Amino acid sequence: MFYRNHLIKFSYRCFSSESRINSFIKSKLMSAEDVAEKFPEKVTIGASGFTPAGYPKVIPGAFAQRIKNSKNPENFSINLYTGASTGDELDGVLARSGRLKLKIPYQSHKDLRKLINQGKVNFIDMHLSHVSKYIREGIFPPIDVAIVEACDVTSDGRIYLTNSSGMSGTYLPLAKDIYIELNEAHPLDMKGLHDIYLPEIHTGRPINIDYVDDRIGTPYVRVNPEKIKGIVLTNKYDSSPGFKKPDDASFKIANHLLDFILDEVEHGRIPKTLLPFQSGVGNVANAVLACIAQDNRFKSIEMYTEVIQDSIFDLIDSDKLRFASTTALTFSSEGQKRFHRDLYELKSKFILRPMEISNNPEVIRRIGLITMNTALEADIYGNVNSTHVLGSSMMNGIGGSGDFTRNAYISIFMTPSVAKDGKISSFVPMVSHVDHNEHSVQIMVSEQGLADLRAKTPKQRAELIIEKCVHPMYKDLLRDYFQHAQRVSFGQHTPHDLKQALSWHIRLQETGSMHPDHQAKKEPTSKDTEKAAQKIDQTAATKK
Amino acid sequence: MFYRNHLIKFSYRCFSSESRINSFIKSKLMSAEDVAEKFPEKVTIGASGFTPAGYPKVIPGAFAQRIKNSKNPENFSINLYTGASTGDELDGVLARSGRLKLKIPYQSHKDLRKLINQGKVNFIDMHLSHVSKYIREGIFPPIDVAIVEACDVTSDGRIYLTNSSGMSGTYLPLAKDIYIELNEAHPLDMKGLHDIYLPEIHTGRPINIDYVDDRIGTPYVRVNPEKIKGIVLTNKYDSSPGFKKPDDASFKIANHLLDFILDEVEHGRIPKTLLPFQSGVGNVANAVLACIAQDNRFKSIEMYTEVIQDSIFDLIDSDKLRFASTTALTFSSEGQKRFHRDLYELKSKFILRPMEISNNPEVIRRIGLITMNTALEADIYGNVNSTHVLGSSMMNGIGGSGDFTRNAYISIFMTPSVAKDGKISSFVPMVSHVDHNEHSVQIMVSEQGLADLRAKTPKQRAELIIEKCVHPMYKDLLRDYFQHAQRVSFGQHTPHDLKQALSWHIRLQETGSMHPDHQAKKEPTSKDTEKAAQKIDQTAATKK
Repeated sequence: MFYRNHLIKFSYRCFSSESRINSFIKSKLMSAEDVAEKFPEKVTIGASGFTPAGYPKVIPGAFAQRIKNSKNPENFSINLYTGASTGDELDGVLARSGRLKLKIPYQSHKDLRKLINQGKVNFIDMHLSHVSKYIREGIFPPIDVAIVEACDVTSDGRIYLTNSSGMSGTYLPLAKDIYIELNEAHPLDMKGLHDIYLPEIHTGRPINIDYVDDRIGTPYVRVNPEKIKGIVLTNKYDSSPGFKKPDDASFKIANHLLDFILDEVEHGRIPKTLLPFQSGVGNVANAVLACIAQDNRFKSIEMYTEVIQDSIFDLIDSDKLRFASTTALTFSSEGQKRFHRDLYELKSKFILRPMEISNNPEVIRRIGLITMNTALEADIYGNVNSTHVLGSSMMNGIGGSGDFTRNAYISIFMTPSVAKDGKISSFVPMVSHVDHNEHSVQIMVSEQGLADLRAKTPKQRAELIIEKCVHPMYKDLLRDYFQHAQRVSFGQHTPHDLKQALSWHIRLQETGSMHPDHQAKKEPTSKDTEKAAQKIDQTAATKK
Repeated sequence: MFYRNHLIKFSYRCFSSESRINSFIKSKLMSAEDVAEKFPEKVTIGASGFTPAGYPKVIPGAFAQRIKNSKNPENFSINLYTGASTGDELDGVLARSGRLKLKIPYQSHKDLRKLINQGKVNFIDMHLSHVSKYIREGIFPPIDVAIVEACDVTSDGRIYLTNSSGMSGTYLPLAKDIYIELNEAHPLDMKGLHDIYLPEIHTGRPINIDYVDDRIGTPYVRVNPEKIKGIVLTNKYDSSPGFKKPDDASFKIANHLLDFILDEVEHGRIPKTLLPFQSGVGNVANAVLACIAQDNRFKSIEMYTEVIQDSIFDLIDSDKLRFASTTALTFSSEGQKRFHRDLYELKSKFILRPMEISNNPEVIRRIGLITMNTALEADIYGNVNSTHVLGSSMMNGIGGSGDFTRNAYISIFMTPSVAKDGKISSFVPMVSHVDHNEHSVQIMVSEQGLADLRAKTPKQRAELIIEKCVHPMYKDLLRDYFQHAQRVSFGQHTPHDLKQALSWHIRLQETGSMHPDHQAKKEPTSKDTEKAAQKIDQTAATKK
């Protein structure tokens, strides 16, 4: 595979960027297939990457091929640690190898998701801020091999990463063996974007980031060079799904949200210079940045977030990006080209930080962030489910949303009010799983409107959410539930009828819709449930 | 009332501690009744106190009396802001006045709880770390009067608090008028215990507490002395419920927990010098300290917590308390006497901090705490309910448990496996309310055993919890649910049967027991529900 796919490019790049292939790198060069041969059959891999950005792209495929070619594929067993989810060439190929046993700490790949929900892959869905500590403390199995994508490696063991910082700072020093994919698609000028720093454990030392642009670490991960056992040359962009223009609902949500923020500024609760934004991934997040770019009321924006997408260019073009701290640059091909083209200028506006730092509660609380994350569903009392379809099936994982929401200056959750042509209401009597509870969710916004839940009792929150956020086709139904619950509830603080609280989910599972008018209730067959599952999965996927 | 209750003590103390009643204090002296007359009928009160410690003890009663004597009690309306809950002389008397409309941010008084669950008092159950910000930003109605208990006041406006720091540092500077209860039961040597510091908002400045004994503020709250409109002399201890010897179950829980901590030390995940403890209030927390005191394996302990109870004397007596940072000293009369007696010596071992600092996520995360809090109930996947009986009825509130759990070094939840002679299992298929979710709950412990939930899938967690923590009489029932859920669940990541998930709670509500063998199911009458409610309330109360 190495020879087939990369030899031409390799020869060319080797010539065109002679300086990158120093004698140390030269001495370590091998093919992806050769690397894959060196892995133990039962292997724990720590990989670079955070979202489809900066992840290894050829070694995992070569290892999957080795398993496929093996006479005893059942001998293989893979634990895969990444930063968040990654691209198909890593998460996808190892999932499809059939030998993936454990994945942490996040995933968003359809093949992997399917295996997890069939109970075939163990997935530990965890706060991203916990991962480094768990790994370093040995709570997870130790790392046999680290595979990281880099743009440069020095003979004294400095590894310069590419589009994401992710977990490499943790995995590299702990791995027995290190393999590097040196991706020549990235210019050497990428060096300097990263700020690698890992907090000591068991000490009370502060992490000295007071502002989004503070640098406290090194632009590389330093390792013992003797542990670098092989370097594979690649020349490939990240396989980002690209950039889709946000839909109308997303723009409506964005506008409600920006009006709210400006209102907070007017009341003196947010300073005129604003506060740094954290923003989840997806349509609504992109719409928010697009709207800020167009809106004269916003002058200058800072980000302290995990993922930067192409939407950042709207801010750059409107000269409104003061600074962005992130863990990943998740660009489309066009975005990547643009970033490389303007790299010299853009470097002063970006820092790539380890997941451990981007998601660190200490820093998040201190800086004071406006956090914006997507709810899969929310209930009338403001509890948010971001992970579980029908309380049982894993969508992607909580990722960093818990770290940010819990410690935010203002925590905002966004969701279109309905999905699947109205068959699913994003607002339900009781969520089927809680990732962010009533105490931590402050603002709820759908395309219908925005509910400010701060300083409200549960009942006041229910009235507000029903009034402001719920789609008209579900408003009366939710009002009915809320009134009914007050009549029969055990207590009046948070009225519920426990017999009816999950009935909307049960109806969805049985009939394919939460709305009683959509179809007559029928006893489901196993085939129906499977079909419904597929439909709901697809819908949920489009919401992320 | 002032004259009736306090004149004798006042005269005596006046003589015996002439220095305390300086000319400024003398010029402001009035009776509680006179103070109460000055309050507006619609009043927002910010009071000192955090748990029954350091709260005003006579002015609230005088105000309640004024309402009672009024021809138009319905004209009165009270919003009460405290730090956590307080004593009967504040939370109780104002609840019973019938004119309390809003209470924040916590409560544990039975009369108040009843009104909240009848829907008659608005209660905002919130993370304690959010309160100061919400108040300072004007999200809650502004404070008309602050009533604080102090041990000294100077003419330039320095107010020295007593047994709790609570929210006084926030409420005092914002209140229009300030009234002080100068409690001469406290020696002037109490001065110096407090470290009052409020973080600026909208800045990225760190809170420079790296170790539990760091001081960053002042030993007093400074206010404009012109705002002090009256001072009432008192001479009363706090009405703490006193100290009950922990029961056997609590000692069993404590022992499981300490074994676990020592095992973590052995594995290098906790340093040999240990990490500071945060501990909730109650039996189990007290048992933990008692066991540490007796256990030769523990040498020296630090606390970074909200509440210190009499159990601290076990540590002091065994010379194991290195330092305790707290927001309240909640002593029995005996404990209070002892503390006063040894004050000179003990002052070097204690700091009283504002709630905003004790519960601050930045500091909590940085210091690295072992947090121990009580679960009202937990489910097989590790989600914890700390607040809601049957998903609807408020017990006490989340208090600081969210701030600590979310940002802990290791987060531990404790609960006896059953309550009410086994009619309630603390472990259920699905909790009826989530305060701490599967991502944040790391260790679960009952008197049956301890489940280490870290790095486990939901299904692995379920097996562990059922195996280690559940009472034998509920083990098979939970196993049955778990196996049944895997057969019918929509997805296999977190298997649930949404039709059965809350059935244990429904059974409890209908029959008074979660166990199907306890009595034949019957259709409940409204009287039954009320009776069950009382029983469950009582049981839940004993668990806290």
